Amino acid sequence: MNQRRIVETTLRVRYAETDAMGVVYHANYFVWFEVGRGDWFRAFGQDYGEWETLGYFLPVSEAHARFHAPARYADVITVRTWIKEARSRGVTLGYEVLDAASQKRLVSGWTRHICMDHEGQACRLPGNMQKLLEQA
Amino acid sequence: MNQRRIVETTLRVRYAETDAMGVVYHANYFVWFEVGRGDWFRAFGQDYGEWETLGYFLPVSEAHARFHAPARYADVITVRTWIKEARSRGVTLGYEVLDAASQKRLVSGWTRHICMDHEGQACRLPGNMQKLLEQA
Amino acid sequence: MNQRRIVETTLRVRYAETDAMGVVYHANYFVWFEVGRGDWFRAFGQDYGEWETLGYFLPVSEAHARFHAPARYADVITVRTWIKEARSRGVTLGYEVLDAASQKRLVSGWTRHICMDHEGQACRLPGNMQKLLEQA
Amino acid sequence: MNQRRIVETTLRVRYAETDAMGVVYHANYFVWFEVGRGDWFRAFGQDYGEWETLGYFLPVSEAHARFHAPARYADVITVRTWIKEARSRGVTLGYEVLDAASQKRLVSGWTRHICMDHEGQACRLPGNMQKLLEQA
Repeated sequence: MNQRRIVETTLRVRYAETDAMGVVYHANYFVWFEVGRGDWFRAFGQDYGEWETLGYFLPVSEAHARFHAPARYADVITVRTWIKEARSRGVTLGYEVLDAASQKRLVSGWTRHICMDHEGQACRLPGNMQKLLEQA
Repeated sequence: MNQRRIVETTLRVRYAETDAMGVVYHANYFVWFEVGRGDWFRAFGQDYGEWETLGYFLPVSEAHARFHAPARYADVITVRTWIKEARSRGVTLGYEVLDAASQKRLVSGWTRHICMDHEGQACRLPGNMQKLLEQA
Repeated sequence: MNQRRIVETTLRVRYAETDAMGVVYHANYFVWFEVGRGDWFRAFGQDYGEWETLGYFLPVSEAHARFHAPARYADVITVRTWIKEARSRGVTLGYEVLDAASQKRLVSGWTRHICMDHEGQACRLPGNMQKLLEQA
Repeated sequence: MNQRRIVETTLRVRYAETDAMGVVYHANYFVWFEVGRGDWFRAFGQDYGEWETLGYFLPVSEAHARFHAPARYADVITVRTWIKEARSRGVTLGYEVLDAASQKRLVSGWTRHICMDHEGQACRLPGNMQKLLEQA
């Protein structure tokens, strides 16, 4: 995997994201994956919101996460995002969530996406997107 | 206010809705207001999702809540919803959130809504909706 | 798997749970898994909140979901929950999310949990809990 | 109001924060208020998470918002936060949410907070906190 193609996002834990165990509620890490994903595309000149305007959607078809250690309110977090696998009709992204201060790994995971048109039919990714993913 | 026009919704606190203080995170009560609102309309034969299909939207233009006492994980909650004020172009709903077991009042509040068409322009509520709200 | 040990939860999609694609945002299905999990334990006389009071926690150590078809605002949903695997120090639960009306399968997944004490150390599940899980 | 005491937070709209209307779900603005609040305290050397460790909590006792215009996925947002009123046992903060590019005002609101100790009793704010708020 080409290190230059890993995009890092920094965010701070919101109180809204914590739960009664005093740590970040597990489902919120999937939201952070989404934030990392948007930043990955943006880092390479792609705007996911614009794709939707053009009629291309990338819904999540499968998601996985392993929770190694908890994050807490106000912690500064790094989300590392990369392309695990690219196909003509979909893409799989990988993620690592780290505590920014200690660089301790908190969560790792991946999400699989299929390309869909505005009628909800599976379709090929737009050409410029395919090229970008192949290079990554 | 006509008591029969108050609609009660029952729900159970989700772990996802709690925060590091061990209680329900305050913004989630506005979500419960939304649940109560949907149930109010449904109780009178109206389906908000269907309005949207017909091109009518009721976005929240103003929201207010007072938080009297906390709710905790797995508590059973009653949301009481009623119409505070109805106009041709909008509606204000009132809410009370109670602990179902003790009937203790946890939160009270209201939301104001304006009717918008699919182009985002303010518009009159559909006729059958106006009639319903006037009666309530 | 013993059919009697599958617990079904019914819920209705909240507007808050939808996203700009007009369907339920994928991370929210993990919240519904949590709702199903709480109901599974409750159906067998266990109250997860009470365990926490006693110093036992069951954080999610791994989570997986496959998204087959979307749910939309106000849809009535069935969450089916069961025990996939029970150990002395942890448990894996399985889930299916169905459209209640059509019985169409929307999402399937599982979550793995480890038992932790109030100091964050892995520990054995309480005895009555272990017995319940072995029977299931 | 002293302009220097307004703290600005920048954030980008997450897909998770949108709803089926294609815009940010209204309750999420209260989460952004919370983000702005944390940043306000942090800007003046206070760490809310640390207060909780010391046994001081600032739960929201009342919240209000007016929604002027919608935010959309990937929009860059500015949250402006300031102290509206400070008392020995509580504080009220004001907020404005702007579109960062156009500086258009999207939402305005306030939250009222009371100081509580670890037993849930109302109490005076810590001395250094009171001093800071009086100056602001």
